[in-house]
Amino acid sequence: MIISESLARALASTREELHARANVVATGIGYKVSDGVRTDDAAREGASGDKWFARSLPDVVVFPRSTAAVSGVMKIAAREKIPVTTRGAAHGYVGGCVPVRGGIVLAMERMNRIKEISAADFVAVVEPGVVTGKLQAEARRQRLFYAPDPASLKDCFIGGNIATNAGGPRCLKYGVTRNYVLGLVVVLADGTIARVGGRTHKNKTGFDLVGLFTGSEGMLGIVTEATLRLLPLPPARAVLSAGFPDMAKAAAAVQSVFAHGYLPSDVEIADRFTLEAARVNAKGEMPIPPGEAHLLVEADGQEENVQSDVRSLARLLEKACAVSVESAMGEEGCERLWALRRGFSDSLKATGLKKLNEDIVVPRGKLVELVEFGAQLGREYGVPVACFGHAGDGNIHVNLMVENADDPATAERMEKALDALFRGVLAMGGSITGEHGVGLAKKRWWSHAVDAGSLELHRRIKRALDPEDLLNPGKFL
Amino acid sequence: MIISESLARALASTREELHARANVVATGIGYKVSDGVRTDDAAREGASGDKWFARSLPDVVVFPRSTAAVSGVMKIAAREKIPVTTRGAAHGYVGGCVPVRGGIVLAMERMNRIKEISAADFVAVVEPGVVTGKLQAEARRQRLFYAPDPASLKDCFIGGNIATNAGGPRCLKYGVTRNYVLGLVVVLADGTIARVGGRTHKNKTGFDLVGLFTGSEGMLGIVTEATLRLLPLPPARAVLSAGFPDMAKAAAAVQSVFAHGYLPSDVEIADRFTLEAARVNAKGEMPIPPGEAHLLVEADGQEENVQSDVRSLARLLEKACAVSVESAMGEEGCERLWALRRGFSDSLKATGLKKLNEDIVVPRGKLVELVEFGAQLGREYGVPVACFGHAGDGNIHVNLMVENADDPATAERMEKALDALFRGVLAMGGSITGEHGVGLAKKRWWSHAVDAGSLELHRRIKRALDPEDLLNPGKFL
Repeated sequence: MIISESLARALASTREELHARANVVATGIGYKVSDGVRTDDAAREGASGDKWFARSLPDVVVFPRSTAAVSGVMKIAAREKIPVTTRGAAHGYVGGCVPVRGGIVLAMERMNRIKEISAADFVAVVEPGVVTGKLQAEARRQRLFYAPDPASLKDCFIGGNIATNAGGPRCLKYGVTRNYVLGLVVVLADGTIARVGGRTHKNKTGFDLVGLFTGSEGMLGIVTEATLRLLPLPPARAVLSAGFPDMAKAAAAVQSVFAHGYLPSDVEIADRFTLEAARVNAKGEMPIPPGEAHLLVEADGQEENVQSDVRSLARLLEKACAVSVESAMGEEGCERLWALRRGFSDSLKATGLKKLNEDIVVPRGKLVELVEFGAQLGREYGVPVACFGHAGDGNIHVNLMVENADDPATAERMEKALDALFRGVLAMGGSITGEHGVGLAKKRWWSHAVDAGSLELHRRIKRALDPEDLLNPGKFL
Repeated sequence: MIISESLARALASTREELHARANVVATGIGYKVSDGVRTDDAAREGASGDKWFARSLPDVVVFPRSTAAVSGVMKIAAREKIPVTTRGAAHGYVGGCVPVRGGIVLAMERMNRIKEISAADFVAVVEPGVVTGKLQAEARRQRLFYAPDPASLKDCFIGGNIATNAGGPRCLKYGVTRNYVLGLVVVLADGTIARVGGRTHKNKTGFDLVGLFTGSEGMLGIVTEATLRLLPLPPARAVLSAGFPDMAKAAAAVQSVFAHGYLPSDVEIADRFTLEAARVNAKGEMPIPPGEAHLLVEADGQEENVQSDVRSLARLLEKACAVSVESAMGEEGCERLWALRRGFSDSLKATGLKKLNEDIVVPRGKLVELVEFGAQLGREYGVPVACFGHAGDGNIHVNLMVENADDPATAERMEKALDALFRGVLAMGGSITGEHGVGLAKKRWWSHAVDAGSLELHRRIKRALDPEDLLNPGKFL
């Protein structure tokens, strides 16, 4: 089988050419054009980007149903030097799955089977297109717990979670996606199928290849199956929602919670701007706690223990100058208190300002310093800054709230403000991204965020695994 | 500066030659021979092995005090193609630090500073020669908690823990060493110094290089500094010690604990042979629970919660057919109950039989199958098999208890028994090592334990980072 050389070129010219290319790929893996392999505008546009603004059209969109099909696509791609970008649910915030060099998009939505949930072994075996929330629900039916909880869990795929090493509020106690991946089936750039890790909860057989692929943003291989670690389902949960006079007092309360030996499942913080936006957006339909800062603390475990934790934590927050403390137990009550936190992003959008959301991280003790830095940055660049997020991890969503974002002068000023933000965060010993990844959005700052030795290591590993730069090219390496 | 080519050859011939070599290395990094760089028999013999039986003499032992010195040694080694094997406290069980090709041993014992413990950021910054137990004690003074607890924690180094991704009983709740490493300073094979990861509790800046080095058994780089994640210190702990009629009932009890939503910090199991050895060895000085299987369950957290957990867990174990349940709270009481478990290894040694300890792992639900398999293996190869270990993780120490271990026919039979053991474990979906690593001891079985794709990945990564095979050569790649 011969593929025209032009298939390797990034962007197609005519519909006929595209169709010819699709035919070759389809024939190669035994699929039908217009079903498993598509070149129509809808399919190409649908595979052109994620939640970030950047878009780029692929030539061909392939919807594989098996590891063998993915391997087949990669063998064609390797031979013909066609870029391949893997796509999950595209709920990323950094343009990580934008096929900037065209070529093939592997859309994993049809590999969506939960192959097994084992209550005896505490593992789930899933394909990458399984929706995270669906896995959680299925596990829960067997009193098992898949802990990672990215905000988009109702939509996002496990495969995307693995590609970005997704976090979420519960990371504080339970850790990131990496901590739940025991084994992977991965297709490499040349089509080789590798099984790394396994089904056991501990494994010291060789290098940590599971970790290497987790969070590699589709640049080292394509995950086609994952064996995930499950936990016993905590029987109960409780949430406390507390208002504070200011961020400094709220941050001090977080430290007090830790100092008393608590590791809550979540500790979420929000600043004055975010709270105000929520108050305006709620239109009186939802009670918003008083004060200029807000903490949400969640505990889980045995019912009796959670009840005791709620009492102790409430006292602790009150002692730490909370101006209001409300608490709830059980799913419904907890979700009622969570509604405020879950609504922050929408409240900020409802201001009519454009929200530039950066998921930076600072060392845990620098929360107040970060918020003060954000406020100063806002004054300097003439833009309100709203901060909310995972206080326990130091992983805060810093949002520049931009008026007239389309105005070129404003856009330029905002780029400078972001430069200053990332410089400041790095100077504090922080990281430019805690959850979202680098993708396209943080590409510009990436090389400032790693030292020369680390950069060299990244390059060597990329070269070793994907020498032709076929996998998700045009991103941070 | 020119080094004689012979320095690159594995074994030295005369004392003068060795001394000349040492001089060259010492001059290269500004150290004195007989202090920081040694070639005397005591130093060479002292750096020849670990707790496993294999021994090999290095030519030169270097005791670096800084990252710069390690980098200097690696530059000389890279230029002259001298093998370099890094050595921690040498408490490993698989010969992982045996310098099988001679050359230089980097003994990290003088890089033993705890540089910082930050209660605000919940991190510790340490050199690799810090004793794990010492870090734990120092952290505890600030009500902070370094969770990993390998059995040798009073002697082993953090650097060795990182090289092997060390586990321990508390892994069940808290995870392995990898989960506590936030950042590393690593010297690469060519002397390059790289900083990977950082000081934040979350970090998505690029590939997971921290994970790649953690557990890489000294084959990819040399860790000279680590930033470790600390947790709030759980204020209380409690231990339950329970006897069971047999292993099947003990294993069912473990599943019942999980099914009720408990994730204890430790769940340790022991079989009849192990218990009997403990009874004989205790000579009546320590009460040993009745029954033919034993479970030790530990809970930690807030005092009130731990008290409640102990009551509930005791009821649970009784319902699950425990023939005795004893419990204790507080350090002293807990350690009294732990004394039995901690003594198992010595009790088995006191039988006079040679203990071949293999730290295999099976999927959590296959505990009973493993123990039955071990018993059958014992009958087949005429050797008692003692099983004890981390039941919650499925990580069991399977000990072949060998009489006349020095007899060549016996030794050969035992090798065959081990072959059968590892074959059986892999057939169960298990792993050949959960904590100890591959080293020399499991080298023979390693290639059977990974698939062709994974093997190829290991080789590519090794080649990318250490193309001349200088770092800990002669091991599993």
